[in-house]
Amino acid sequence: MKLSELQTPSLVLDRPRLAANITAMSARMTEQGVNLRPHLKTAKSADVARLATAAHSGGITVSTLAEAAYFAANGFRDITYAVGIAPAKLPRVAALCRDGLRMAVVTDSVAVAQEIARTPDCGDGIGVFIKIDCGLGRAGIRADDDALIAIAQALGGSDSTGSSASLRGVFTHAGHSYGCATVAEIEIVAEAERQAVLRAAQRLAEAGIACPEVSVGSSPTARFGRSFEGVTEARPGVYMFNDAFQVGLGCCRHDEVALTVLTTVIGQRRDLNMLLIDAGALALSKDRSTASQAEDVGFGLVYDASGERRLEGLRVAAVHQEHGLIEPVDDSAQIPFDDLPIGARLRIMPNHVCMTAAAYDRYHVVDGGDEIIGEWDRASGW
Amino acid sequence: MKLSELQTPSLVLDRPRLAANITAMSARMTEQGVNLRPHLKTAKSADVARLATAAHSGGITVSTLAEAAYFAANGFRDITYAVGIAPAKLPRVAALCRDGLRMAVVTDSVAVAQEIARTPDCGDGIGVFIKIDCGLGRAGIRADDDALIAIAQALGGSDSTGSSASLRGVFTHAGHSYGCATVAEIEIVAEAERQAVLRAAQRLAEAGIACPEVSVGSSPTARFGRSFEGVTEARPGVYMFNDAFQVGLGCCRHDEVALTVLTTVIGQRRDLNMLLIDAGALALSKDRSTASQAEDVGFGLVYDASGERRLEGLRVAAVHQEHGLIEPVDDSAQIPFDDLPIGARLRIMPNHVCMTAAAYDRYHVVDGGDEIIGEWDRASGW
Repeated sequence: MKLSELQTPSLVLDRPRLAANITAMSARMTEQGVNLRPHLKTAKSADVARLATAAHSGGITVSTLAEAAYFAANGFRDITYAVGIAPAKLPRVAALCRDGLRMAVVTDSVAVAQEIARTPDCGDGIGVFIKIDCGLGRAGIRADDDALIAIAQALGGSDSTGSSASLRGVFTHAGHSYGCATVAEIEIVAEAERQAVLRAAQRLAEAGIACPEVSVGSSPTARFGRSFEGVTEARPGVYMFNDAFQVGLGCCRHDEVALTVLTTVIGQRRDLNMLLIDAGALALSKDRSTASQAEDVGFGLVYDASGERRLEGLRVAAVHQEHGLIEPVDDSAQIPFDDLPIGARLRIMPNHVCMTAAAYDRYHVVDGGDEIIGEWDRASGW
Repeated sequence: MKLSELQTPSLVLDRPRLAANITAMSARMTEQGVNLRPHLKTAKSADVARLATAAHSGGITVSTLAEAAYFAANGFRDITYAVGIAPAKLPRVAALCRDGLRMAVVTDSVAVAQEIARTPDCGDGIGVFIKIDCGLGRAGIRADDDALIAIAQALGGSDSTGSSASLRGVFTHAGHSYGCATVAEIEIVAEAERQAVLRAAQRLAEAGIACPEVSVGSSPTARFGRSFEGVTEARPGVYMFNDAFQVGLGCCRHDEVALTVLTTVIGQRRDLNMLLIDAGALALSKDRSTASQAEDVGFGLVYDASGERRLEGLRVAAVHQEHGLIEPVDDSAQIPFDDLPIGARLRIMPNHVCMTAAAYDRYHVVDGGDEIIGEWDRASGW
């Protein structure tokens, strides 16, 4: 099938850009002596995961147990579920362990650590990372919290007898790197991220507790961190695709964004200087993360159907469920209505690709031309 | 299966509330002498559609052609696709017509009307509504626009020979009722909605063009419009479920919201007075529509697991992809951490139910108790 025949809205993945993004991050992590355990919460695709893990251990990170089951069914055998585990989800983790997977979960709670240690029927056991809050202020304990040693002890230690749990290591996510205004700020957050997990690992070592892994991860800090000394693995994810927000952060250029939404013009409002497209709130998401950046792209930037030429000065200014409203950023500019009749096709570069991609069950993969060279499926749900 | 055993996040539909909402709107439309052609863009469910159409013609409204195909496969034979049609989508409409469906599309363009009239192989033909902008400022022409007559003529009129198109009527959507602060304001918008389509219908009549249907639709204007004289059908949708935004608008009470997200506490941050749940941006959406209302519910209101008791003073203050962050509205209030350990279950009443429901492939239907009495599927994609 051809891109020009594809129904809209559809998700279009540019393979050369994807490959370049993956190669760059993989090379950087190799150069830093860090294993790349890519986070597949963005891509949720086995095809993408095979490319992203190629030069590393093959281990991946996921954000839901539905992803874990999907990747397990697609041959991935070493999976870390990176969202704090609730005890009621442990039977699903145990089932994956019984299938021979090397599964790890994350916790910041002594009570949950005890539950993991008591989980029945989980094969060779469940790996556990202790979540450290390095400044994001979401999940985790501070590296100096007394709970650190208590959690490790509740697991039974890494060489326990009788416990289903073994301590895999310490784990953090510098999500606050997304709030940085400059690369210099990202470098500072990256160093704080590293120091937090190193401090936690050191405290475990001082208590005589083995801590094999020191795991960090966010695309900006993986891209710009100056030192990874002491870090064993990194878990960035969005770098594979990038998006307008990552451009705004300084993590990539526009021509390194691999994912766009193909859309069709479905209305012209010359009286309102506005164009209507069939990519609305469901097709693009309501994410507004660039609102806090120097360039607010609204709900997305506008490109021609090839994805190569940006229609300067335009953005998706508003979205309703199935309508996107394209307006000029500068009110005095005019939309080129004669070039964009109803039926014209455009590509929208999304604000936040994790949210946008989640609306689709597949990628239409292109190689720069009009030919669709593949349809790659995506996991969804929980 | 029991609600208490259901994995989280999951979408929970309260059938008694759904039934009451449907009955109330259906009765109101019957009382006003208006056919209810419910919009299924919110529910995207054949089970819900069967309830919603029970006392009316059986016709429905949809927002995507994927919905049209889904409802056709589930026995619905009279479907209006309510988003401006792009010519490239006409073959899919024609295929539904060939299957014997009574299909209608919407346009505000002379060029598109010509394309519809030329569509080959579409059985008994495609019904067409002319879209009128009654003040929303999105799709449509003004009721006084010269294009009104030109579009009708481009279709070939309702008794044309040779044309695939027949004029079904005029059509508007008072989406700007969502911006109203009071019921009195909604009443004014409802009257403007009615007057706009009546004016367009009158102009067509004066031009000797038959206009069988005069179609309006939004949940607030259907609920509060004082007169429907001259209106033949209404297309509200969100009234079936309601949400926190509809509560804020004055369209319903909290105990008339039929849809919630079941979630689990996955973290406690006593140091930050914050609770983490496993319903984040994908499970709730990033919709922030209540930000403009008197009560800003953040990303949702917090209820106990039964869905009956609101945890006053709490809201989902922030969402990341798979994390929701519950915080008190008033900083000086304390989260009752001892009552909400990791593993505790809650129900979140969403900001905007159309966006939230779209993340799920099914409803878990309850009758007030712990028993799940049904799993109802949902259409998705385009």
